[in-house]
Amino acid sequence: MKTIGVFDSGFGGLTVLRELLALVPDARYVYLGDTARLPYGSKSRETIARYAVSSARFLAEQGAELLVIACNTATALALDEIRAAMSIPIVGVVEPGAQACLAAASKSAAGVAGSHVLVLATAATTRSGAYSRTLNALGLRATEKACPLLVPLVEEGWLDQKVHTAVTLEVLRIYLLEALEQAPDANVLLLGCTHYPLLQPLLETTLKNLHHPMHIIDSAEATAREVAGLVPGGRSQAIAGSADRVFYATDSIEKFQRLGSAFLREPLPPVKLIDLGG
Amino acid sequence: MKTIGVFDSGFGGLTVLRELLALVPDARYVYLGDTARLPYGSKSRETIARYAVSSARFLAEQGAELLVIACNTATALALDEIRAAMSIPIVGVVEPGAQACLAAASKSAAGVAGSHVLVLATAATTRSGAYSRTLNALGLRATEKACPLLVPLVEEGWLDQKVHTAVTLEVLRIYLLEALEQAPDANVLLLGCTHYPLLQPLLETTLKNLHHPMHIIDSAEATAREVAGLVPGGRSQAIAGSADRVFYATDSIEKFQRLGSAFLREPLPPVKLIDLGG
Repeated sequence: MKTIGVFDSGFGGLTVLRELLALVPDARYVYLGDTARLPYGSKSRETIARYAVSSARFLAEQGAELLVIACNTATALALDEIRAAMSIPIVGVVEPGAQACLAAASKSAAGVAGSHVLVLATAATTRSGAYSRTLNALGLRATEKACPLLVPLVEEGWLDQKVHTAVTLEVLRIYLLEALEQAPDANVLLLGCTHYPLLQPLLETTLKNLHHPMHIIDSAEATAREVAGLVPGGRSQAIAGSADRVFYATDSIEKFQRLGSAFLREPLPPVKLIDLGG
Repeated sequence: MKTIGVFDSGFGGLTVLRELLALVPDARYVYLGDTARLPYGSKSRETIARYAVSSARFLAEQGAELLVIACNTATALALDEIRAAMSIPIVGVVEPGAQACLAAASKSAAGVAGSHVLVLATAATTRSGAYSRTLNALGLRATEKACPLLVPLVEEGWLDQKVHTAVTLEVLRIYLLEALEQAPDANVLLLGCTHYPLLQPLLETTLKNLHHPMHIIDSAEATAREVAGLVPGGRSQAIAGSADRVFYATDSIEKFQRLGSAFLREPLPPVKLIDLGG
């Protein structure tokens, strides 16, 4: 049974793990949330690369034979550095997300040439331009929009109660209106941050209210499909149990434990605290 | 001329420095924003103490003879550790803020015994209970309210344009309504985070809309008054120039530089990047 390492700056990457557990259930999983040093989204490329490489090394030491960078910011800014530092296969979230956009665009009425992808992401991810470069290379037009308030809103859980969703819907409306001013013909919406899948129902409501339907692409799902293609063999008889899932965090175990199950959509086993320095 | 070190996890402490420059202008200032490791508000006591002590040591190496911990979270969770590790006087923001509440309460119609202080702060600060302990020791009742969305809203600058302030006002209304349910007789409001002074006009509007007037206390101002009492002598003839203000950050110079002047309310000289590890 293959051991797959999954890395994120926090627990957002659990939305990627959730898709992996569904598509590649017969594997061991070691998850690391670098919670002592999050958020990566507001930090520089050098700092993010340093953090990500030390986290990748830790997961390889735990036996990971394949590593999923389940963090858009770390993928966008440090994928090359991580690949250079490691000798195991590394899968990021940007390329699979872009490929899923291409598939959606080619099936759309506008076709690939007429499609325009709107990428919602953190400030650091949009600043890197990684999604635009990757999407452009596939023949797709792209506009990136930084949405710094969305991660705090998701982490506060302002997603359910009416008084809270009113705020979250208004923030989404403001961001989408600003973005659609730049990209009025956008027809594909890429969720370029692992926190955003939790916002999908509210995003759908917002797009409906704006009378601007778009095809929503979740990088997490696309990434899990890429990993499924890399892990040899189909599902074995012996499906991995919860003992084959180990969770590490560098800090804030309490918050990880509390919010993690909302991202994973199942109870989280006890999270182990480790110190990567810093 | 005395050298005063001012430390915060980011640029929020610049609201404290602003008050210091007004009250103690004839001093050299060395400011450190530990931006590579922010936010402290969501991290554990151990991690915060480790970060704060290494930052304090750096400022002492730069010649600081007095150190201001211009960060509520670092003061609430690590003041004892910083004092134990350093041989220079250390001023935090919690005790001065609490003292200012006492002064306001004693002048209020309710008096000290009838007053009730509502403390707005980060999750880590409220979890520490430092403000409640300090206020209770002064004979004041206190209720603390964690407001995790306020720092992101301030950092995004959602404070001016109408479409943005509508969101910020609604978030403030939700937080204050929740807090006043716990403390319906609160008559003093303490801004327990260095970002919050930038919200003061919107807070005043919210309190007015809720028909619940309160005396707003800013820890930054109270802290500067305490420092003024500790620095011997009045204002010298030679007022320090901008050459006597040095700014360091551990990352995100760009953001520090961009937002810093809004907090300091004057242009910021170039910020120097340093590496404290991690």
